[in-house]
Amino acid sequence: MAGPRYRLVIGNKNLSSWSLRPWLAMKHAGLDFEEIRINLRGPGKKEQIFAHSPSGKVPALWAGDLMIWDSLAICEYLAEQHPEAGLWPEDPVARAVARSTSAEMHAGFQALREHCPMKLLSREPQETLDETVELNIGRIVRLWQDCRRRFGDGGPFLFSKFSIADAMYAPVASRFQTYVKDLGAYGDDGTAVAYIDALFALPAMEEWARGAEAELAEYGAAAG
Amino acid sequence: MAGPRYRLVIGNKNLSSWSLRPWLAMKHAGLDFEEIRINLRGPGKKEQIFAHSPSGKVPALWAGDLMIWDSLAICEYLAEQHPEAGLWPEDPVARAVARSTSAEMHAGFQALREHCPMKLLSREPQETLDETVELNIGRIVRLWQDCRRRFGDGGPFLFSKFSIADAMYAPVASRFQTYVKDLGAYGDDGTAVAYIDALFALPAMEEWARGAEAELAEYGAAAG
Repeated sequence: MAGPRYRLVIGNKNLSSWSLRPWLAMKHAGLDFEEIRINLRGPGKKEQIFAHSPSGKVPALWAGDLMIWDSLAICEYLAEQHPEAGLWPEDPVARAVARSTSAEMHAGFQALREHCPMKLLSREPQETLDETVELNIGRIVRLWQDCRRRFGDGGPFLFSKFSIADAMYAPVASRFQTYVKDLGAYGDDGTAVAYIDALFALPAMEEWARGAEAELAEYGAAAG
Repeated sequence: MAGPRYRLVIGNKNLSSWSLRPWLAMKHAGLDFEEIRINLRGPGKKEQIFAHSPSGKVPALWAGDLMIWDSLAICEYLAEQHPEAGLWPEDPVARAVARSTSAEMHAGFQALREHCPMKLLSREPQETLDETVELNIGRIVRLWQDCRRRFGDGGPFLFSKFSIADAMYAPVASRFQTYVKDLGAYGDDGTAVAYIDALFALPAMEEWARGAEAELAEYGAAAG
């Protein structure tokens, strides 16, 4: 069969936090895929989405004629299909904690998601945030510290080497970069700042950010 | 080592939808565990939770001194540790769809969760529900139909045999039973009703419901 094995349907790179997750995991793991981009702020976006993703959701991964329509499920599928990519930590204890951390993100932090939507390229630092958002930030800072302290030795990521947990929290790192003036106010001892720097230094993250800039130029500022 | 291998920290059986998920998966799979129940409506509940679950969350699974604190992560851990229990479908395609279905529940259906909290033993059928809730119900009915049509042959569950996907949707089935007067109004062709019946006929679900009744007697109606 010619062409890449996978097609990944994603939204705008500046905005679509859920799209960033599997894209980053795939790109970092060096998996070959065709990228199908949908302008979620463009005309006819609904038809566009349904044309490429019958569930009406992005991201969606096509593996042949199998469609997987949830960011965490996509990552789990890729981890199974490509064990050599090491998308989950090898150690079962680290893996169980990585899955807890990832699933907590997948299901939670509603306030942060609602009040601080991802705007990758924007800088809008806030002195204070809604109390519910601040509780989320404090929890995430403690969680990152805990993962780094227990499992972070030898590498800059939550579980040392890059894993799905980092893909899940990359959009959070972006939100912190956009909206949080000083993570120290939320209990950061430098761990969170260093972790965010490590994420944004990934070549795959740099490529995503360049893509976001190109899309803004292509779609216009309304899409950003 | 004496005693069961696992301790599962859960909330009230009438109310705690997230606790039901791993409990049902473990019970149905015949895994031995000690149950640690916390009355989420009782005095000192915060201290109680933190005493048993340092993350402050229920459910939490203790496997020796490893704590896993998210319902989906607990299920993934058990599926890995006990392949003989068949907690995910064996076929990779079915498994990928089961994970999409489960992760969609884990991250979504906010309106249903907010407006229709689980009250296992109550029957409060509504003629109409908030529009956002009705959209959730319609999506879930279609999702169940789709899973049953593609993968349901030979057994009554979403992927034929009981799987983690059923554990994830058991609390939804309970909400439908409590609040939805007629699933036909949301596009059900009988699939959803039959599926809910199959779930509630599970010996493990019957045991959970008896536990909910016993707790109401023990804690008082305020806990229900």
